[in-house]
Amino acid sequence: MPRVAVLCGGVGAARLLAGLVRAVPPADVTAIVNTADDMVLHGLAISPDLDTVVYTVAGASDPERGWGLRDESWRAMSTLERYGGATWFGLGDRDLGTHLFRTQRLAEGATLSAVTAAIARAWGLDLGVVPVTDDPVRTMITLADTGDEVAFQDYFVARRHAVPVASVRFAGAGEATPAPGVLEALAGADAIVVAPSNPIVSIAPVLAVPGVREAVTARRDAVVAISPLVGGKALKGPADRLLRELGHDDSVVGVARLYAPFAGALVVDTADAGHADAVRAAGLRCVVTDTIMRDPGAAAALCEVALGL
Amino acid sequence: MPRVAVLCGGVGAARLLAGLVRAVPPADVTAIVNTADDMVLHGLAISPDLDTVVYTVAGASDPERGWGLRDESWRAMSTLERYGGATWFGLGDRDLGTHLFRTQRLAEGATLSAVTAAIARAWGLDLGVVPVTDDPVRTMITLADTGDEVAFQDYFVARRHAVPVASVRFAGAGEATPAPGVLEALAGADAIVVAPSNPIVSIAPVLAVPGVREAVTARRDAVVAISPLVGGKALKGPADRLLRELGHDDSVVGVARLYAPFAGALVVDTADAGHADAVRAAGLRCVVTDTIMRDPGAAAALCEVALGL
Repeated sequence: MPRVAVLCGGVGAARLLAGLVRAVPPADVTAIVNTADDMVLHGLAISPDLDTVVYTVAGASDPERGWGLRDESWRAMSTLERYGGATWFGLGDRDLGTHLFRTQRLAEGATLSAVTAAIARAWGLDLGVVPVTDDPVRTMITLADTGDEVAFQDYFVARRHAVPVASVRFAGAGEATPAPGVLEALAGADAIVVAPSNPIVSIAPVLAVPGVREAVTARRDAVVAISPLVGGKALKGPADRLLRELGHDDSVVGVARLYAPFAGALVVDTADAGHADAVRAAGLRCVVTDTIMRDPGAAAALCEVALGL
Repeated sequence: MPRVAVLCGGVGAARLLAGLVRAVPPADVTAIVNTADDMVLHGLAISPDLDTVVYTVAGASDPERGWGLRDESWRAMSTLERYGGATWFGLGDRDLGTHLFRTQRLAEGATLSAVTAAIARAWGLDLGVVPVTDDPVRTMITLADTGDEVAFQDYFVARRHAVPVASVRFAGAGEATPAPGVLEALAGADAIVVAPSNPIVSIAPVLAVPGVREAVTARRDAVVAISPLVGGKALKGPADRLLRELGHDDSVVGVARLYAPFAGALVVDTADAGHADAVRAAGLRCVVTDTIMRDPGAAAALCEVALGL
């Protein structure tokens, strides 16, 4: 069976991984996860994409929300609300334990990758879950209307990504280095999968860590990307909108043109079969299949097609 | 009715205050609270004595534990335990909201006294609750057996105060200044009450903030202390043991000698009536009454005796 490295954002990547570990042995999978959505809030180190990946693959994520833990309660938030505190970023009671642990371990000098490995182990995961970098990288969003630059979660959660974006940058990326295991996983993988995550704010910051884009590009023939757009729409989040606002084609063709420099193939949904020739014209092989991951079984089937199993 | 300032530790002080606000108008009461038990844990700013005072006066504290909120749940701790994280200091889910709020506001530049006032207001309190200082002061305990110096909560909670103590110091006290309102409350009070808190690790660090001991001493005739010992025993915590280990008499007489320089009167329990002459010999008036605060009504009666109402 192939060793697989997966470039990951949050929910879409997490659902893909939950299927991938059914299609190939989990120990052969390394998830390389975006950390540019991370933030410190209420003093706590919060890593939304890492937690979404771990919770989802563990079968512990909330199926409705897509983020956080199932069977969650909100009593800490309720107290915070009493004080008029910042409750726009919901932290469930069960979930808070993860942030407490991560914050304490980081304060004690542990790296984010070491803390993440401990968290993944505690949830019984056999796949590797690795932050793309242990260094702080932060997605900063310049809003079109005001010209203000805001942190990612301010845009994504507090403003519900309902405001036009002028530009995106990844603060700290220039000084970051890949976390231990990232370049090794990319070099040693039989296949590199680009998860159906947001190209602008999930995949791009992973590639922005110096050395990662080069390592992926060096394996271009082994790289298969899965389109996060179905019929020109993101299933969740602002991928279509961000592509459009930043001057890209808001279709699988736009995704293909963005990914062509480092990916050899793009998997698109049957709804986008009509774009297959345009994808090929952008320089990628095009695989057409059902990309909607209704459950881990559907995600596993998608992975099998993507990997040509 | 008299304006009253109260020097406070945690549980004993909180129970006294819950009665005091029945005996005098709450708006005339200022609780000046020890902060030397405070700590940062899991990245969160935790102020145990301030929270115990607020929760207890609000009628929201857990009656069994004495600390934390009633109707509490422990789901964050349960997640933390999954990771093998540090669960020795229990943080309930409801309680966590208070720490999240305080940590965020402090990070934004608010003072501890401003944050505490907001928290007290949110719980509907009319009395003033003021940390003795906005600056970091930390009780450090040197253990007799090993000579190691540990932080207060490491001694008090993690080791359950079951190890002998060689010495106590208040790190940072020399550089601290009283929080806004502290010296004013002491100067303007008709009565200053020393709550039945631990003389060594609750009252002493309050007095160690430069200017506070002097301000209390200047009002010595208006200062009435309530003994935290009943029949030579602390009702809760290690007050008797610490007095003994640090070379003091572990009775109300030892308390009287410690407090004589700044307090004009000591209220002792009927169980200690036999020590009244020795208390007077130490230079204090001695008031004998029932000091066990079974409920806020009993605490109110104790306050009325202490204040001579």
